[in-house]
Amino acid sequence: MNMKAPRGTVDLLPEDTRKWQYAENIIKELCRRYHFEEIRTPVFEHTELFQRGVGDSTDIVQKEMYTFEDRGGRSLTLRPEGTASVTRAYVENKLFGNPSQPTKLYYFAPMFRYERPQKGRMRQLNQFGVEVLGSADPAVDAEVIDLAMACYKELGLTSLKLVINSLGDGESRDNHRRALVEHFTPVKEELCSDCQVRLNQNPLRILDCKKDRDHPAMKNAPSILDYLNDESREYFEQVKSYLTLMGIDYEVDKNLVRGLDYYNHTAFEIMSEAEGFGAITTLAGGGRYNGLVEDLGGPNTPGIGFGMGFERLLMALEAENKQVALEDSLDCYIVAMGEKAEQESVRILHDLRVSGLQADKDYLGRKMKAQFKSADRYNSSYVLVLGEEELDKQVVNVKNLETGDQKEVNLSDIVSYMKETLLGGNEDE
Amino acid sequence: MNMKAPRGTVDLLPEDTRKWQYAENIIKELCRRYHFEEIRTPVFEHTELFQRGVGDSTDIVQKEMYTFEDRGGRSLTLRPEGTASVTRAYVENKLFGNPSQPTKLYYFAPMFRYERPQKGRMRQLNQFGVEVLGSADPAVDAEVIDLAMACYKELGLTSLKLVINSLGDGESRDNHRRALVEHFTPVKEELCSDCQVRLNQNPLRILDCKKDRDHPAMKNAPSILDYLNDESREYFEQVKSYLTLMGIDYEVDKNLVRGLDYYNHTAFEIMSEAEGFGAITTLAGGGRYNGLVEDLGGPNTPGIGFGMGFERLLMALEAENKQVALEDSLDCYIVAMGEKAEQESVRILHDLRVSGLQADKDYLGRKMKAQFKSADRYNSSYVLVLGEEELDKQVVNVKNLETGDQKEVNLSDIVSYMKETLLGGNEDE
Repeated sequence: MNMKAPRGTVDLLPEDTRKWQYAENIIKELCRRYHFEEIRTPVFEHTELFQRGVGDSTDIVQKEMYTFEDRGGRSLTLRPEGTASVTRAYVENKLFGNPSQPTKLYYFAPMFRYERPQKGRMRQLNQFGVEVLGSADPAVDAEVIDLAMACYKELGLTSLKLVINSLGDGESRDNHRRALVEHFTPVKEELCSDCQVRLNQNPLRILDCKKDRDHPAMKNAPSILDYLNDESREYFEQVKSYLTLMGIDYEVDKNLVRGLDYYNHTAFEIMSEAEGFGAITTLAGGGRYNGLVEDLGGPNTPGIGFGMGFERLLMALEAENKQVALEDSLDCYIVAMGEKAEQESVRILHDLRVSGLQADKDYLGRKMKAQFKSADRYNSSYVLVLGEEELDKQVVNVKNLETGDQKEVNLSDIVSYMKETLLGGNEDE
Repeated sequence: MNMKAPRGTVDLLPEDTRKWQYAENIIKELCRRYHFEEIRTPVFEHTELFQRGVGDSTDIVQKEMYTFEDRGGRSLTLRPEGTASVTRAYVENKLFGNPSQPTKLYYFAPMFRYERPQKGRMRQLNQFGVEVLGSADPAVDAEVIDLAMACYKELGLTSLKLVINSLGDGESRDNHRRALVEHFTPVKEELCSDCQVRLNQNPLRILDCKKDRDHPAMKNAPSILDYLNDESREYFEQVKSYLTLMGIDYEVDKNLVRGLDYYNHTAFEIMSEAEGFGAITTLAGGGRYNGLVEDLGGPNTPGIGFGMGFERLLMALEAENKQVALEDSLDCYIVAMGEKAEQESVRILHDLRVSGLQADKDYLGRKMKAQFKSADRYNSSYVLVLGEEELDKQVVNVKNLETGDQKEVNLSDIVSYMKETLLGGNEDE
């Protein structure tokens, strides 16, 4: 009986989800400031979408997708990345017809890639990502990069490196492609089998190959930057000048090509330079994809976006010691002894919670001392003691766990008393 | 080319996600008050988990699962419900060893069931759910029901019906099972083919059958409530008395059996009674599952939980007109004219956002009038106008869109001025 989580997946337990929620809330607040709104697309899509929208020649589509037939014979695939799905939703729901343009969307979503699991590389990975559809303004490229950097900075990360590149427009890419084929064809037999295929299908991808990284022909391979036409060069200059205006440092890396077929113009990656972060240093990556909406059946529409791995974000926070210590907490813990007190405590507990307080009680029939221990463990601010003696006097003994102060409060007043003490007033009643 | 979302799935667009976020935030706040913490389990699990943890004889496992082999030959299944996964995580991560017990967990998660799609029944459905593991106190049953009801009430729903039942402990269920077999065997041939199988496998499920609902033998079928042993009856009495103490109305429905194999003792459902809600009225359902942790390889541990459909929750809010009107909003919209102003506006935009303000600008090279129209459409509080004239004077023209008031502010002071105006002070600087 295999009762473990499947290989390459993990459970996020409360000690983890507290950290995830903390990071998510900060990022959601940044999305609000940058005026992005949330979109949620299905976990699976028709397989065709990714073949077409991510690219048939990519590693993702060729090797890493979770593809299966449903009971109706449809070929479905668990979403391996976010851009194709969001673009499909943009086309299907005709968001291009909305007067508010560009359409600025964000998502938090699980992605699925069948890879060899290692630290920072899971089969179910979680991404935060954004897509801006409907504007070819280089200021949008800068805005998207700015938002990605703002997420890390707001969370306290400092050891970051932003690298950017331009992949140019169609004409620039065609010229570069021809130069790459010319450059690598004489040494074709020395390249790995994947790259031999890439030489025909998508020679740009050779620059990204991990196996052939040290081949001498890689060193002086033609750079896309030398093949940009005037328009593409001017576009790239503007993106860079906007980044500078916003005070965002970057490096140009002419070999940055990204692993997806649909990119053009701006491509970027953000890396962690924290010591001990691990071998895979890329935290986020993105770029422009001006042809994708049309490829998926929509009108000619420019687009740009990025995806940010959440597992790696949490690793980076840990590597830079920026983890916030988030503990369990409680306003009130009710210590009840005896059957009648038990019943009364259930009513009080309900009323405290309705009043907005965070409250709990014992559910294991523990002795009084053990109940106090629970209150400590939950970091409760107050303990409300209700034993036979208190019941006889119709009071609750309220103990402030920080100061040790104790006070008897009438049973009938206990909820409003705690509310006033903890939330400062009864405005709501 | 099939570029639509797969059948039975939908995209949630910003006008939807605003409503979802609103409901989720209220429910998360209630989870905080009730002292539940979040758990996130993988989207897929080993198929075996659901066969064992949901039950081989259930409709879910027999007809509705998305099951497939991964590239390593594992049989995986997209999670059809939450309890089996959370229980598996509880066992695998040894949460039973944690001194804080019971373990009170909640989740927001997509579930997958291959059913005929209709209003309120999707193939990818979203659930909020909770599980409490480690306590057999009837006060926990009441707490869990209380939390489910509190979610609906806090969101403003009033046309609700809570029905509860007890399925008893093992002994009670065995006695009841024998009575059911005795009762239905004489009419076996008149029952639907599914129920003929159920008669051997799980006769309790016959009471839940939609096809045989009107068969005369259903009317006087033996009720579990007549077969509860003393302990089970006493347990049920206590749950009911706690609900009464908390002021929660309920009805006992002796035919409520729930569609999953693992339930015992308390079972409950919450229905919408709103007019025009639709045919499927169940909003949430849950119950106790005291044997499940042991079935999945853990120690003998009691458990109880519920699942709440989010699509149906949103339908109920609509049916009761409790939808909150949530509009797009913005603090500042920058209207810039001319190349230099454009550049300056990118810098100001960045600084406004860093200061905590929600700000945006035009990215389509629109004329001034159209830019003002955008500001209106986004319900922006202020427009910041930066044209050649303003640039020459090194000022920004700030217009309050509500009052129509205008004011010239020095370019170098604009961010701190807007921050003071909108957030009331510079404490953070």
